[in-house]
Amino acid sequence: MQQKQVHYSDYLQLEKILDAQTLESDLLKQHAHDEMLFIVIHQAYELWFKQLLYEIDSVAAIMQKPAVNDNSPELQTVVHRLNRMVTILKVLVHQIDIMETMTPMDFLDFRDMLRPASGFQSWQFKLVEAKLGLKYQQRHGQEYYISQLRQEQIDIIRKVESEKSFIELLNAWLERMPFFEEAENWKNYKSVAGTPAAAAAMKNGPFWTDYRHIYSAGLAEAEQNNLQYFDQVFSDGPFSTGELVLASREGQGEARQLSPRACRAALFIMLYRGYPILQLPFQLLNSLLEIDEQLSTWRYRHMSMVHRMIGTRIGTGGSTGRDYLKGALDKHYIFVEIARLTSFLIERRKLPVLSPEMEKRLGFVG
Amino acid sequence: MQQKQVHYSDYLQLEKILDAQTLESDLLKQHAHDEMLFIVIHQAYELWFKQLLYEIDSVAAIMQKPAVNDNSPELQTVVHRLNRMVTILKVLVHQIDIMETMTPMDFLDFRDMLRPASGFQSWQFKLVEAKLGLKYQQRHGQEYYISQLRQEQIDIIRKVESEKSFIELLNAWLERMPFFEEAENWKNYKSVAGTPAAAAAMKNGPFWTDYRHIYSAGLAEAEQNNLQYFDQVFSDGPFSTGELVLASREGQGEARQLSPRACRAALFIMLYRGYPILQLPFQLLNSLLEIDEQLSTWRYRHMSMVHRMIGTRIGTGGSTGRDYLKGALDKHYIFVEIARLTSFLIERRKLPVLSPEMEKRLGFVG
Amino acid sequence: MQQKQVHYSDYLQLEKILDAQTLESDLLKQHAHDEMLFIVIHQAYELWFKQLLYEIDSVAAIMQKPAVNDNSPELQTVVHRLNRMVTILKVLVHQIDIMETMTPMDFLDFRDMLRPASGFQSWQFKLVEAKLGLKYQQRHGQEYYISQLRQEQIDIIRKVESEKSFIELLNAWLERMPFFEEAENWKNYKSVAGTPAAAAAMKNGPFWTDYRHIYSAGLAEAEQNNLQYFDQVFSDGPFSTGELVLASREGQGEARQLSPRACRAALFIMLYRGYPILQLPFQLLNSLLEIDEQLSTWRYRHMSMVHRMIGTRIGTGGSTGRDYLKGALDKHYIFVEIARLTSFLIERRKLPVLSPEMEKRLGFVG
Amino acid sequence: MQQKQVHYSDYLQLEKILDAQTLESDLLKQHAHDEMLFIVIHQAYELWFKQLLYEIDSVAAIMQKPAVNDNSPELQTVVHRLNRMVTILKVLVHQIDIMETMTPMDFLDFRDMLRPASGFQSWQFKLVEAKLGLKYQQRHGQEYYISQLRQEQIDIIRKVESEKSFIELLNAWLERMPFFEEAENWKNYKSVAGTPAAAAAMKNGPFWTDYRHIYSAGLAEAEQNNLQYFDQVFSDGPFSTGELVLASREGQGEARQLSPRACRAALFIMLYRGYPILQLPFQLLNSLLEIDEQLSTWRYRHMSMVHRMIGTRIGTGGSTGRDYLKGALDKHYIFVEIARLTSFLIERRKLPVLSPEMEKRLGFVG
Repeated sequence: MQQKQVHYSDYLQLEKILDAQTLESDLLKQHAHDEMLFIVIHQAYELWFKQLLYEIDSVAAIMQKPAVNDNSPELQTVVHRLNRMVTILKVLVHQIDIMETMTPMDFLDFRDMLRPASGFQSWQFKLVEAKLGLKYQQRHGQEYYISQLRQEQIDIIRKVESEKSFIELLNAWLERMPFFEEAENWKNYKSVAGTPAAAAAMKNGPFWTDYRHIYSAGLAEAEQNNLQYFDQVFSDGPFSTGELVLASREGQGEARQLSPRACRAALFIMLYRGYPILQLPFQLLNSLLEIDEQLSTWRYRHMSMVHRMIGTRIGTGGSTGRDYLKGALDKHYIFVEIARLTSFLIERRKLPVLSPEMEKRLGFVG
Repeated sequence: MQQKQVHYSDYLQLEKILDAQTLESDLLKQHAHDEMLFIVIHQAYELWFKQLLYEIDSVAAIMQKPAVNDNSPELQTVVHRLNRMVTILKVLVHQIDIMETMTPMDFLDFRDMLRPASGFQSWQFKLVEAKLGLKYQQRHGQEYYISQLRQEQIDIIRKVESEKSFIELLNAWLERMPFFEEAENWKNYKSVAGTPAAAAAMKNGPFWTDYRHIYSAGLAEAEQNNLQYFDQVFSDGPFSTGELVLASREGQGEARQLSPRACRAALFIMLYRGYPILQLPFQLLNSLLEIDEQLSTWRYRHMSMVHRMIGTRIGTGGSTGRDYLKGALDKHYIFVEIARLTSFLIERRKLPVLSPEMEKRLGFVG
Repeated sequence: MQQKQVHYSDYLQLEKILDAQTLESDLLKQHAHDEMLFIVIHQAYELWFKQLLYEIDSVAAIMQKPAVNDNSPELQTVVHRLNRMVTILKVLVHQIDIMETMTPMDFLDFRDMLRPASGFQSWQFKLVEAKLGLKYQQRHGQEYYISQLRQEQIDIIRKVESEKSFIELLNAWLERMPFFEEAENWKNYKSVAGTPAAAAAMKNGPFWTDYRHIYSAGLAEAEQNNLQYFDQVFSDGPFSTGELVLASREGQGEARQLSPRACRAALFIMLYRGYPILQLPFQLLNSLLEIDEQLSTWRYRHMSMVHRMIGTRIGTGGSTGRDYLKGALDKHYIFVEIARLTSFLIERRKLPVLSPEMEKRLGFVG
Repeated sequence: MQQKQVHYSDYLQLEKILDAQTLESDLLKQHAHDEMLFIVIHQAYELWFKQLLYEIDSVAAIMQKPAVNDNSPELQTVVHRLNRMVTILKVLVHQIDIMETMTPMDFLDFRDMLRPASGFQSWQFKLVEAKLGLKYQQRHGQEYYISQLRQEQIDIIRKVESEKSFIELLNAWLERMPFFEEAENWKNYKSVAGTPAAAAAMKNGPFWTDYRHIYSAGLAEAEQNNLQYFDQVFSDGPFSTGELVLASREGQGEARQLSPRACRAALFIMLYRGYPILQLPFQLLNSLLEIDEQLSTWRYRHMSMVHRMIGTRIGTGGSTGRDYLKGALDKHYIFVEIARLTSFLIERRKLPVLSPEMEKRLGFVG
C-alpha cells in the first residue's frame, strides 16, 4: 500500500493554529504589543489542558475495568501516563515565568479591552479538576464560578461531575485489591526480631488491630489526637456509609472520597511497597501526590502572578482576583486523603513481618 | 612576583567540606541510607544562605551611602547582585525536588534520632529575612522561633534586626530621589493629546493631586475603596510619623516600612520607567519583587514537602510542622508595599506628559 | 462607548486551536495513543515560534531606525523583549522533558505513518534563525534543508535572508555608536594609579593602540596567537571590505558579520559597562549571548532526544537524524563574534581611565 | 534510653562548612567580590558529587550480589536511587545558571590568582565517571587529565578503575537474567494475528533468528547497514571474546562493555517491558540513559559557560578550556550501548507473541 505523503504543516494544521491570534487592541486600533503574548500563552495552556484531559480519559478507561490485570501492562500504562501529566504540569508551572515578562503597565495597555473575559472561563481546566475528583461542593466560590461559564460549558462540567471521577475509580480499585481481604484478617505475621517494643505492642489480633497498637505506642504525647484521627480514617462501621465528614486540615469539614477499606489498602501499599506486586501501586499513589503538588504549585504561582499584575484591583472577569485564587489554593487538593496517610506510617523496623504464604502471594512466580 | 601554587582541593578546603557528614544513625548503629542525603542537602542550603547573606551585605553597603551616584556603576552593581540572589533562590526551590526523592518511610528510619534538631534552627535563613527587612514583630510564631535558637544565634539576629535593614535603606534612597521634589510640585506637565477623559481629570494642580484624579476616574464602581487606600499610601500628614498601620492583605494590621514619599517615588519610577535615569531603579524594584516571590515559592514548596513527609505529626523540633510554615507564608512578605503599588498604575496613554525641562533631567547628556 | 463583550473561548479562538488534532493513526484505524502528544507538543512549539518571530520583528523595527534615541525607552524595550525571548527559549528547552515521556516503542506505533513529515519542515524555526542572522551559506546540510520545504516556504525564508537581519542591524547600531569616534582617537585617558605594568604598556597613542599593548602584556606565552586574532578582529584596512573570513572555532572559515569598528564598540561597551549610557547596551549584548546559548542548548537536547528515540535509524524526513542535528550544533551560532570578544578583555584594574570630559558624555545630566 | 540532644548547627557541622571560604583575592589584599560565589558554587558541586558517589556505591553493592532477588525490594531500591541521581544531576545543570551571573570581567578580577587550580582537579567527578564505567582509555585528553591530579587522587581513581564498574555489574546482571535462556531458544511463540508481513518474516527458528528476520523486513533501503550492526551487537561467536571494537557513533573505534548476550537481554526487556517481572528492569535501563543524558547536558552547558567566560584563552589549569570539554562531550557517554539498542526495536504489532508458559514465568503468582 502506498501511503499518502504527509507534510508537517498540514499534519499539524498550522494554518489554523497560527491564524488564531486576533488582538482586540488591533481591532480597536490601539495596538498593544504584549497582547500577542497574552493570547499565545493562553492558547499554549489550553493545548496542554487538552492533552491532560486526553491522558486522564485514557487512564480512567483502564481503571474502570472490573479488574485491572496485574499481569498485563495496564497498571504500568496508568503510572506512565500519570507521570507524564506531572511532567506536563511542571512545564506549565515554568511557563508562568513567560507571563511574568509582561509588566503591569504593559498589561494595562489592553486589559480593559478584554472584559469580561478571564482565565476563570477556562472550562478545560475545570474539567481537569472535575475528572480527577474535585466536586462542585468542594469548589471555592461556586456561584462565581458558574457565573463565568456559558451554559454549554457548565453542562459539560456537570456531566463529568456526575460520572465516576478518577478518585472514585481509585477507591474501587483499592477496595478490591486482591489478597488484601486475607491480609486484613490474617494473624500469622510476627513482630520483627529485636524490637521488643513492637513485639509488646502486638497482640496477634487482626492486622489492623495490631498495627494500631504499634502506631499508638510510637506517638509522642502531643500527638495522641492522631489516634482518634486514625480510627476515623481506617475504621469501618459508621464510616462505611460514605457520609463521614472528616475534619480537614483547614478546620472545615469535608466529605471523604476514600472509604476506610480503601485507605487501609493504600497504607498497606505504602508500608510494604517493596513486594513486587505492590511496586506499581506505590508508584501510582506517588504520582497522584505529585499531580496534586504540581497543580497546587501552579495555583500558588498563578496567584502570586495575578497579585503582582493587578494588585488589589478586580480581575477582568469581575473577581477579586487574588482572593479567589487564594481560596481555591487550600480547598482544591484532590488526593489529600492519600497525602494524609503519611501521618500513620511507622518505622520500617517495627513493621509486622509477613508470613511466607503471604510473601508468596505478593511476589513473582520466578 | 612568583605566585604560590593553588590546588583545587586546598583552595576549596575540601577536607573540611567532605568530612563534615556524620550520620546519627551510624552512631546509633542503625545505618539509615537516606540520612546522608538529608545532611548533604541541608549543608548545600546553608552554603547558599551564606552566599545570599554575602550579597545582601554588599548591596546594603552601597545603599547606605549618603548618596548613590547615578553616574557610577553602583546601582548597576546592586541590581546585578539582587538578580543573582533571584537566580540562587530559583535553584534552592528546585533543590526541593531532591529532598522529595526521600520517601516518608525512608525518613522515618532516622527521623527520631534527630530530635530536637530542626530546620527552624537555621539562623542563617532567619538572618536573610532580617537583613532584607523582616522584623521580629512581623514573624509568625515568635516565641517558638526564639525557643529554637541558641542564645548566641538570637543575639546575632537581634543585632541585625536593630540595624538598618535593606528595606529601610531603600526607603531612604527613594525619599532622597533627585529631581523628585520638583516633579511633585511641578505643574507644567500636560495631558496626552487625544485622551479627553484624562485631560478632564487633570486640574493642573501638583502632580499627585492630578494623578489622583486620573486614577479615580479609571476605577470601576467596585474598586472605589482603592481610592481610600491610595490616600493612605501616598498622603503625608498623619502618616509621615511612620506609625501608620496599614490594613494588610490578610486583614491584619501591619506597620508600614515605606513612607508616603518613598511610595510616591517608587510609583513614579514604575510610571516613567522608560526615562534613562529611571531604568535601573525600575529594575531594582522588580528584583525585589522577584526575591519575595522566590522566597515565597520556596516557603510554599517547603510547606508542601513537609506535609507530604510527616503529615499531621509534629516536627522534630516540636512544631506543628506544616502549620507553622503556613503561618509564615502569608506574613513574611518583605516588599509587599512595593508589590501593592501595582494597584495604583494607570494606562500609559493617560499618563501626564512631562515637560521638556523635566525630560532633560531624566536623560543623558547625549 | 459600550465595548463589546469578550468571551475567553472566542477571544482565544479555541474552536480552531482545540480542533486541530487529527491522528494519522486514527485515520488508518490503528489508534496510537502517544500520537496526540506528538501533535500537541509540536503545535505548542509552533505557537511559541510565532511569538519569537513577533518579538524579533518588533525589536528589528526599532533597531533599523536611523538612530535609536538613547533618551527614549526604545533600547529598554529591545532589551526587555530579547530577555523575554530567552525566557521563552528556556521553557522550550524544558518542554523536551515532555517529549521524552514518549518511549521509542510508543513512537514506533505511529512513526511510519508520518513519512515524509519531519521537524525539519518547521519553516518558522528556520525563519527565527534567518531573522536573527543565520545565512543560507552558514547552514549545515543546505540541500537537504531545501529539499524538505515547500516552494512557498523557501520563498519566505529566502526573502527574509535577503533583508537586513538582526545582526546586521546590530552591526550598524554599533558602528554609529555616539561619542565613540572620539573615544577611538582620544589620547587623554590615563593608566590606573598603582599599576605600573599597565602604565608601562600604555604609550598614550590612540585608545586601541594602547589597549593592544596592555592586552598583549597580559597574555601567557601559549596565548600569543591571540594577538594575531586581536588584529584580525579589531583592525580596519583589508577587513573593512567585509569579505574577511575568520578562522572559526571549528577550524572552518566563516564570513564575518560584524565589522572591526562594530567589534571595537562592542568591546568598549563590555569594558566600560558601568557608565550609565552603556548599561543597556551591555544588557543587550548579554541577551544575545543568552539567546544563542538557549538555542544551542535546545539543539543539543533535541539531538540527544532524537538519538534516544530512533538511534541510528533515519528520520521520518529521510535525514540521518542525529547527524544532521549534530552538524547544525556547531555551525548555527549566530552571535559567536560577540561571544569571542571575551577573549580580549583585560583586568578592570588595568583599564585606561577615561577623562572627565569623556565620563561626562557617558553619564546623566543629573 | 534518653537520647542525646541534637542541635541543627552541630549536626550539620556548620562551623566547618561555613568557615571554609578563604578568598585568594583577600589574601592578596585585592578583594574580588565574586570570588566568594566561585568558591561556594564549587563547594556545593563537591557536596553533591559526594552524594552521587554514595548512591553509586550503594547500588553497586546490590548489583554485585551473586543474584538480585526479584522478590525483594532490592531492584526497586536500585531504580529509586538511580532516579535520585538523575534529580540531583538536573539541579547541578540548573546551578550553572548561578555561575553565569558572574560576568567575564568579574572573573578576570581574581582569575589569575587561582593558577594552576582548575575544575579538572575535581577528582570526585572523575570518580563518578569511573564508578559508572568510564575507563581511562576512553577518556579524552588522558595525559592532561593525569597531569592535573595529585598522586593520591590518581591512585584512588586508578583503584576504582580496576574494580568492577556499574556497567560491568549491569552486564553480569543482564547475562544471568532468569528465564532468558529459555526465551532465546524457545520456538513456540507465534506472530501477531493480522500482520502477515511479520508472520512471513518469521521462520519459527530460535527467537533471535526470527527477530532478525522481522527487523530486517522493516528496514528502509538506506538503513540496510543497520543489519550488519545488528549482527555485531547481538551475535555470539567471535564477539564473545569481549575484544570486539564497535564502530562508534563518532567514527572512532571503541571497546564494547556489554556482551552480545547482555545486549539481547536488554533488548528483550525493552520489547516486553509490560510483563511484571520486566517493569523494574525497564525502569532501570531508562534511568541509566537519563543519567547519561544529564551528565552530557551538564558537560555541554559547562563547555558553553567556559567559552563564554574565557573565550579562546587558556584555562587556569593550562588547558585549552572549551576544547578539552568539547572532546569529552562525545566520548564520555557511558551507557551508549544501551542507548543504541533503540535502533533495533520493531513495532509492537509485529512482536512475536509469547506462549502462555512464558507469560506465566514473567508474571505474578496472583
